[in-house]
Amino acid sequence: MTDSNETIAILGGTGDQGLGLALRFCRSGRRVVIGSRKTERALAAAEEVRKQVSGADVEGLGNEAAAAAAQIVILSVPFEHTASTVKGIRESLREGQIVVSMTVPLATAVGDGAVRTVGIWQGSAAELVQSLVPEGVEVVSAFQNVSSHRLQRLEEPVECDVVVSGPKAARQQVMALVPLVEGLRALDGGPLSNARIVEELTALIIGLNIRHRCPEGLGIRFTGLPDDE
Amino acid sequence: MTDSNETIAILGGTGDQGLGLALRFCRSGRRVVIGSRKTERALAAAEEVRKQVSGADVEGLGNEAAAAAAQIVILSVPFEHTASTVKGIRESLREGQIVVSMTVPLATAVGDGAVRTVGIWQGSAAELVQSLVPEGVEVVSAFQNVSSHRLQRLEEPVECDVVVSGPKAARQQVMALVPLVEGLRALDGGPLSNARIVEELTALIIGLNIRHRCPEGLGIRFTGLPDDE
Repeated sequence: MTDSNETIAILGGTGDQGLGLALRFCRSGRRVVIGSRKTERALAAAEEVRKQVSGADVEGLGNEAAAAAAQIVILSVPFEHTASTVKGIRESLREGQIVVSMTVPLATAVGDGAVRTVGIWQGSAAELVQSLVPEGVEVVSAFQNVSSHRLQRLEEPVECDVVVSGPKAARQQVMALVPLVEGLRALDGGPLSNARIVEELTALIIGLNIRHRCPEGLGIRFTGLPDDE
Repeated sequence: MTDSNETIAILGGTGDQGLGLALRFCRSGRRVVIGSRKTERALAAAEEVRKQVSGADVEGLGNEAAAAAAQIVILSVPFEHTASTVKGIRESLREGQIVVSMTVPLATAVGDGAVRTVGIWQGSAAELVQSLVPEGVEVVSAFQNVSSHRLQRLEEPVECDVVVSGPKAARQQVMALVPLVEGLRALDGGPLSNARIVEELTALIIGLNIRHRCPEGLGIRFTGLPDDE
């Protein structure tokens, strides 16, 4: 049996972005547990991953069981279901686990457009998640700006930087996951509160996708890093 | 005499970023008028540009005279001086002019750090400027994320995208200025309210500069534009 430290749980792994990450992590050889509110949907998503990635080590479970099955639990549910999902898995989470928030408070959650966000009392969706997890569970923000289309196009690298924010040790663990997806590069995004900026950036990118006619979705790269020069 | 449509005024052109833009626009052959609250400082900055760019067509003036001397007026003053600067040039501005806001409401304005911002009632510094200019003057947001160090290093292109936001016709005029700086590329940032996100991005980049030990400053590029592929 694989060590649960090596397993990655993806709640909402049946959605476009979550499924894309599941495909990519499986492709890199990691074991993935896909969680969904409805177990049968998680099973179907796992089956889809196995179809696309030969030898994929993947399982579909209900959200609570999936959250208990890995040290790192990625939350990939639409913003409007984020709080209820976290409340639903609270009992399954234990000290030392890391919950990765990749949700963006797009204004679609209140019937407005995806090029704008709604304000979050805690500052960001990631900080809202932080306010809901049990003590001892760390929250890290990452992956918001990665296009689901690009993730699912497995034959191409995903040209995008991922800004990872949160408490230092947990942040470093999540930064280590990022390059498992070919093309992605992790940047040290500092404290969790910087998720405020990274989440907003997704709404800007969605507008750029529309105005620059790029339905596959733009990515972002930071230039001038010392390693590049 | 050069047509004032071809002249670019830069208020605060004595600061690092404003001076950098003045150098680059002069290098591209454009006439630049540098404005400052103190005329002697504007004269000194113009002298500096002439020293670095042979044949530069540049002049130093007080802010009010500089604002009257060009159709496009770039505001490059620290956030805490932005409102007072705009109030000081109101009488000089006329219908059809474009004011470019490149300021970022960094929390340094209230004695906190540059990796955070303060909230602006109007939504962004650019929208604050919009609320202060006379009717018929358009405000466009641009250039916030361009490193002053990179601008001033004239022998190298500036690897950065510039997200330009504001009313369509004015936005297009400013987008046309962007590639005058070698390396810069303009992206269509839609309505002025998107300045909220672009301004915040500067604070994130300043934090990344620190954590990734890049005192020259990172830039950003959007990947996957249809033109690239």
